[in-house]
Amino acid sequence: MSEMKLYSMPSSGNSYKVRLLLALTGQTYTHIACEAVSDALKQAKDAGHLPLGKLPALHLTDGNVLTESGAILWYLASDTGFLPSDPLTQARVLEWMFFEQNRMEPVIAVRASLKSYPHLADQATPDRMESLLNDGNAQFVLLEAHLAQNDWLSADAPTIADIAVFGYTHSSASRGGYDMARFPAIGQWCDRIQALPGFVPLEHQE
Amino acid sequence: MSEMKLYSMPSSGNSYKVRLLLALTGQTYTHIACEAVSDALKQAKDAGHLPLGKLPALHLTDGNVLTESGAILWYLASDTGFLPSDPLTQARVLEWMFFEQNRMEPVIAVRASLKSYPHLADQATPDRMESLLNDGNAQFVLLEAHLAQNDWLSADAPTIADIAVFGYTHSSASRGGYDMARFPAIGQWCDRIQALPGFVPLEHQE
Repeated sequence: MSEMKLYSMPSSGNSYKVRLLLALTGQTYTHIACEAVSDALKQAKDAGHLPLGKLPALHLTDGNVLTESGAILWYLASDTGFLPSDPLTQARVLEWMFFEQNRMEPVIAVRASLKSYPHLADQATPDRMESLLNDGNAQFVLLEAHLAQNDWLSADAPTIADIAVFGYTHSSASRGGYDMARFPAIGQWCDRIQALPGFVPLEHQE
Repeated sequence: MSEMKLYSMPSSGNSYKVRLLLALTGQTYTHIACEAVSDALKQAKDAGHLPLGKLPALHLTDGNVLTESGAILWYLASDTGFLPSDPLTQARVLEWMFFEQNRMEPVIAVRASLKSYPHLADQATPDRMESLLNDGNAQFVLLEAHLAQNDWLSADAPTIADIAVFGYTHSSASRGGYDMARFPAIGQWCDRIQALPGFVPLEHQE
């Protein structure tokens, strides 16, 4: 039987968000792992399986291909509890998802990459690293304040906003050199996500 | 009669997107203009009208306040032709909206700001300006390729994806020093948007 195919990067937070939602909602798919600088990634690009060369890429059974982790989450969460249907709650979900892609991912994930990859070392100037540290902490302060008052980001149950923000918050924050002990409400929220039925960690691959 | 209130920054592309959709859909609202470094902005912040200090902020008549331009667009477009209701088209809309907030706005709007504001001049190093130029051009190449094949970004008719991408593409691209003559399909798409019934330019204020 034909099923959805997901091209994803095992180490990437954006790719992980999609794998996590698929696990939490019990949807079956074929996973094609394309790690950075791998033969599999090159083959997938050469074969045209990655529109604009981007990961993650979801191939639906009807031939449509979706990119952008947030857009893929939206599609896969339709008709599940992870995406409420009323417009106001949907806007609350998108508030956090846009905040994450515009203010968190370009800072927190980038600082983690600059610390992790030797070939990026010349971009990791002291000024830039300090700026990314301060900027990331400012975003965590906002997230902490919200989670000190709310169990979940956008509704009274977990939604794709929680999955989207969790992606880099749990994986790149410490790797990026952020002191997460300063943010206990974020830590407790991560614990709640990790306790959800079907949860899989980033390292888990189908 | 009570109506929605929009706090927005007249010169900002993110704020303009919301004003444009309101005009295109004929929705009435009270506009509170909060320009950068203005008394009006300080007063709105001090009065607690801007959650997290952010603009634009939409105050609904029931007391709810929405931030993040993309989330506000989503809410305001519900039940209008600017937001199709099927999940696949919605994902196609979000592909471009996330791309814009993650890859375009942080590059194109930032380069325009660095060129426009004297107090940011010390951040506008030659290396950074060249990097922002190359990065922005790479995003315009992708946009141009899509618009060479499609009249609108995500459907057969304009959606909030077109409005979101138009916001900075038309206003900041030239201000940011990008040579838009290289991208004729983008220019023709801008013309189509400007021809929509109800269109208002960035400079128009309610």
